[in-house]
Amino acid sequence: MDELTAPTEPEAKNQLFDLQEEWTMQDMTFILFGATGDLAKRKLFPALYNLFLDGKLPDSISVIGLGRNYFPDDIFQSKVESALREYSRRAVQTNGLNDFLAKFRYCKFDAADNDSYQNLHELIHDREIELNIPQNRLFYLSVAPQLVEVITSGLNKSGINQTTGWKRLIVEKPFGNDLKTARQLNERLNNAFNDEEIYRIDHYLGKPMVQNLESFEFANPIFGSLLDRKRISNIQITACETVGVETRADYYDQAGAIRDMVQNHLLQLVMMTALHLPEKMTAKEIQKQKITIMESLRPIYKDKMEQNVVRGQYEAGEIFDTPVVGYKEEPGVAASSMNDTYFAARLFIDNPSWSGIPFYIRTGKRMAIKSTKIVIEFKNKVKQTDALPADGITPNLLIFEINPNEGISLMVNMKNPSSKQFEPTYISFSTNSEVQPEAYELLLFDAIRGNATFFAHWKEVELSWQWIQPLLEAFQENTLPLHPYPAGSNGPEAANQLLQVDQFKWW
Amino acid sequence: MDELTAPTEPEAKNQLFDLQEEWTMQDMTFILFGATGDLAKRKLFPALYNLFLDGKLPDSISVIGLGRNYFPDDIFQSKVESALREYSRRAVQTNGLNDFLAKFRYCKFDAADNDSYQNLHELIHDREIELNIPQNRLFYLSVAPQLVEVITSGLNKSGINQTTGWKRLIVEKPFGNDLKTARQLNERLNNAFNDEEIYRIDHYLGKPMVQNLESFEFANPIFGSLLDRKRISNIQITACETVGVETRADYYDQAGAIRDMVQNHLLQLVMMTALHLPEKMTAKEIQKQKITIMESLRPIYKDKMEQNVVRGQYEAGEIFDTPVVGYKEEPGVAASSMNDTYFAARLFIDNPSWSGIPFYIRTGKRMAIKSTKIVIEFKNKVKQTDALPADGITPNLLIFEINPNEGISLMVNMKNPSSKQFEPTYISFSTNSEVQPEAYELLLFDAIRGNATFFAHWKEVELSWQWIQPLLEAFQENTLPLHPYPAGSNGPEAANQLLQVDQFKWW
Repeated sequence: MDELTAPTEPEAKNQLFDLQEEWTMQDMTFILFGATGDLAKRKLFPALYNLFLDGKLPDSISVIGLGRNYFPDDIFQSKVESALREYSRRAVQTNGLNDFLAKFRYCKFDAADNDSYQNLHELIHDREIELNIPQNRLFYLSVAPQLVEVITSGLNKSGINQTTGWKRLIVEKPFGNDLKTARQLNERLNNAFNDEEIYRIDHYLGKPMVQNLESFEFANPIFGSLLDRKRISNIQITACETVGVETRADYYDQAGAIRDMVQNHLLQLVMMTALHLPEKMTAKEIQKQKITIMESLRPIYKDKMEQNVVRGQYEAGEIFDTPVVGYKEEPGVAASSMNDTYFAARLFIDNPSWSGIPFYIRTGKRMAIKSTKIVIEFKNKVKQTDALPADGITPNLLIFEINPNEGISLMVNMKNPSSKQFEPTYISFSTNSEVQPEAYELLLFDAIRGNATFFAHWKEVELSWQWIQPLLEAFQENTLPLHPYPAGSNGPEAANQLLQVDQFKWW
Repeated sequence: MDELTAPTEPEAKNQLFDLQEEWTMQDMTFILFGATGDLAKRKLFPALYNLFLDGKLPDSISVIGLGRNYFPDDIFQSKVESALREYSRRAVQTNGLNDFLAKFRYCKFDAADNDSYQNLHELIHDREIELNIPQNRLFYLSVAPQLVEVITSGLNKSGINQTTGWKRLIVEKPFGNDLKTARQLNERLNNAFNDEEIYRIDHYLGKPMVQNLESFEFANPIFGSLLDRKRISNIQITACETVGVETRADYYDQAGAIRDMVQNHLLQLVMMTALHLPEKMTAKEIQKQKITIMESLRPIYKDKMEQNVVRGQYEAGEIFDTPVVGYKEEPGVAASSMNDTYFAARLFIDNPSWSGIPFYIRTGKRMAIKSTKIVIEFKNKVKQTDALPADGITPNLLIFEINPNEGISLMVNMKNPSSKQFEPTYISFSTNSEVQPEAYELLLFDAIRGNATFFAHWKEVELSWQWIQPLLEAFQENTLPLHPYPAGSNGPEAANQLLQVDQFKWW
């Protein structure tokens, strides 16, 4: 744990800005399972195209899309083109478009059929010969969870993953359903790919503002001295949506907010926020520190659960003046469902950096506003002297806004020159999201170069499940109250109580 | 000097926010010498009107305007109304306008004529009887410098300043021409008004952002811990204009930038910036601390002057693409003038709070941009480790913008997610200047209530002249080079050198 603040290796200081280390870009094959799906269309093709526009693809890259139905290559290429026209953040340019599309081939694929793997292997190999590129193969599994194990096993049996170059596997969430199934899944993936070859996407880690977190205090000495437990009173991490369960009831009613958001995204944000004072900044060091943080995350035992965890479920209400139904009335949800659509908790990281500083996390569907943000609340020394009128002086806040807008704000108290009273004022910086690369662009670029910094490492995933496991059981056994909250509200009152007992409030 | 950081009086803590102390507003007479002049028209009448709109005038106030020519009251009142229509920051409202104008009376006045004082005395007295208000009299001298002594002496001889209530005198700059004449002037004023009754206007002290300086770090504990010599590398105070000498050559060619800007405004900004960690915040305490700062300001002896002071004079050049003449070609300026239109200096405050932190100040006419601001540059610890690429990491800056826009900015380094390079980014807050009260509004309001916090105290003025005096002499004797700079530039190269030798640059 000491490593967080005091690295002992002599070379530590020399690696401070090793994030600039040269990740090599090599010619390769990108094999996309699920190439006719939504993620491919909306995110992956546009991400590849924007990388292409920026000169951030290897000189020679073979892209092979796989799907259940047959298409000739030119139809597939025109599908790719349509996806770019509809979803690329930058307009499609005539110049170079054909070069880009010419990289794409299509292969009809059935995960349960041995011949499919044979055909795929031949196509990959033929293109490698044709383009004269090494056997560097990046497999992207954008498929239903139950197919992940099937396909990796098939890749193994067919020998596609036995290459003379490097091989990498990108998988999407969910990564298991609980600690046990996550471990099973990982073991099976490990039959075909070793740990360093597996890139688990958590698209929150691809958001530019999240990627800024670990370097922000480094590049800004003034914040380096502020982001310290002596000065911070608490940290609040929020990921709220206005949408309800939409068409995902099948999955969501089994998963709940706790699996859908907390085990992965929120705990990743906790790790990224608590990545405090890293003296080294290599990908390996960051992963090591994230693991240390998860190991220091105080378990929530059953007798303390009700004081530290709030689960909720939305009832009918209004979103932007439009009436909406409650969760139990949503199509595909049982009228007796006890599923959580809201989750809030008080966390403590028992290490020297964060000891005694509460981290409050919350996520919910059908909330009043859509907002993902990290709020760092500073101690209000002013408030702590007896002599002062507490009202009017608001604690200083440092806010990292992640979604829907990206930006950093600082809340300061300014004196109103007329009334001579202090008033809270935001000084803020917002990026122009049009010129910001999308999360998938950054993550694909990193995966292509073999930079795993912003992917979820197995050990992090395992520790997250381990931490979550007692909660999953309590939710399952209904030993924790399920607080109703109206759609369009700020969540259950119990979540406010969670902070009020500590004399804080949600920002 | 210890008082700056460690007050010993037991009641100190209880006075922390004494700025909220109740300054009493009492019925009174406002006697304005120079009521037909420019300042009255542009600033004072609009200020009174806006205070009226905000309910910030006494319930009953008698306003008496004085000027050399005769007008009946109703003509004077219509002149006041025209001034409001032209210069008030808020539109004139029909409602209440007559009530406001009815407060105004006019009196023809000749400063050299005893009868004039007699008439004025009678008018003041008659209105006091008529309105049934106490003899609280505020005298505002908006007149040529040579008339200040004449009028105060006349007030004394005529007994106008012998009141049963309070009396106050507001005077505008210039307050003397050097240490000796300033002392003479003060002595003469003291024949009619004592120290606490004299309000010396420095309109820079009326700017809302300057008034924010002394309380900013108090109300914002995070800055309280940053504004510390351990973290600050230097402070830069800039007050630059694009205009030239305009029609003021008579005065300006005698005064120079050093008297026009440095002795008063810039040194006041130095004091306000260095008002560091005030443990008490009463007006008296602030004045006491400002005096302590001036006493700690290291004198610039003749042998060190050239290394620490740069004086300049503009030559012909271009302002916003329009050719303009040099200073010596300006109407009313002698072709041989050695007058300073630019001044820069390195200052040190030898007290425990600021020891070793250079304060760089500069002011100039015909500069590239109009800007008054205070920049606090933080130490760049990042830069100070060997391992780091210094380029790309800019020091953190905290910037108080005073003019033409008011605002606070913080310069931080953000990682560009595409290039992974750090880029300097401003997070800033700007006030909407339409809703901000003007400097004269704030200052008049304070003078009416007897709050002298944001006026220049005699001792401050005296110490400023004392500090400036060796420079005045060197300028007079031309023992210091006069650096030419093209109009529309950033000033003489020598001013850049001033910072370069310390490895800094102007921001």
